[in-house]
Amino acid sequence: MSLTNSECVYSSESIQHMEKFERANFVNSLSGFKSANLIGTKSKNGITNLAIVSSVFHVGANPPLIGMLMRPHTVARDTLQNIKDTGYFTINHVNADIVKEAHLSSARFDSDKSEFEATGLTEQYSTRLEAPYVSQSHIKIGVKLKDIQLIELNKTELVIGEIVEVVTANNYKADDGYINIEAAGSIAVSSLDGYHTTSRIARFAYAKAGEEVRELEE
Amino acid sequence: MSLTNSECVYSSESIQHMEKFERANFVNSLSGFKSANLIGTKSKNGITNLAIVSSVFHVGANPPLIGMLMRPHTVARDTLQNIKDTGYFTINHVNADIVKEAHLSSARFDSDKSEFEATGLTEQYSTRLEAPYVSQSHIKIGVKLKDIQLIELNKTELVIGEIVEVVTANNYKADDGYINIEAAGSIAVSSLDGYHTTSRIARFAYAKAGEEVRELEE
Repeated sequence: MSLTNSECVYSSESIQHMEKFERANFVNSLSGFKSANLIGTKSKNGITNLAIVSSVFHVGANPPLIGMLMRPHTVARDTLQNIKDTGYFTINHVNADIVKEAHLSSARFDSDKSEFEATGLTEQYSTRLEAPYVSQSHIKIGVKLKDIQLIELNKTELVIGEIVEVVTANNYKADDGYINIEAAGSIAVSSLDGYHTTSRIARFAYAKAGEEVRELEE
Repeated sequence: MSLTNSECVYSSESIQHMEKFERANFVNSLSGFKSANLIGTKSKNGITNLAIVSSVFHVGANPPLIGMLMRPHTVARDTLQNIKDTGYFTINHVNADIVKEAHLSSARFDSDKSEFEATGLTEQYSTRLEAPYVSQSHIKIGVKLKDIQLIELNKTELVIGEIVEVVTANNYKADDGYINIEAAGSIAVSSLDGYHTTSRIARFAYAKAGEEVRELEE
């Protein structure tokens, strides 16, 4: 079938002609729901830093790799510099109880002030890495920098690290390894500034051709 | 503060020692909520293909770029080959009404059979590109391939394309460009097989140091 008259169509020309912030909101909506994470780092001078990002994504399970896309010249530049200087960072899932503090971390603070202090969130440390976790987060990941690749098309930097530790506030892990991030209160992001809780429809078993899709029992 | 006794800690060694599927479920949970998208392509022989992916992510707004990470040797390999051969693909948000059909697209079908036919989803075409949209999706994106970068660490391929068209079932776009993907029924993914509807907490205004975080009015 063809496109219908009731559908709204935006051509590349109409997107190009949008005002800058309209286009940013619009295009950032298109990929779908995103993860909400606070990135914890420490500078070589010992000042801690916290930045909310929605660009964390899965890279691979073995070895356990996780990545995030960082734009140059944004407020997260201290985060990127700290990662380059120290080789470590933490990824902390945002939950509904700390969503305002998490969003506030995107403001431009003086670089000699810790965003932990500025937002009221609490630093927490493991013996395995020097980067700070966010105590109030329920899923925390310690990461060692492995590589930074430049995305040539728009000069963004893809930061990829290896997971060296995972800390969860309670036992959210099923026997098959699935972590119930919804039970942990993790939230999702839409576009640049929308925050959402979730409600699980189902987990589905591995799909096979010619068979009905079946829900997993827990 | 330090880690507490009530927290669950997984070291890199304990992750390494997990059974293969347990580790896959576990590590895939860690990045947080993911987008749920069906990738529509057509082979050079004219056979259409459909594959669900949770790895689509925002790359940039100007030019409007969107990316996805593709693993080699998975069932999505036909998708990647079609993109390389034809230079175009579509990204279609999954909603709750088609979640079982979407999940079924991950099964291994004969490569001479269209997953549209196998899943019961409907091909839809625009005049701007030859790749098929999924009629039942409410947010559809036409994409032209711009670059494929190899992630050296684990030989996955990062596919980046430029958005050439956006089609929405209704007018979900606010004046400031934000697309209400929740109103469009778009769902989120956890780990490899969890599907979730969402409930918006709020949109927050641009954060400023020393000011309270404020909800956006609509």
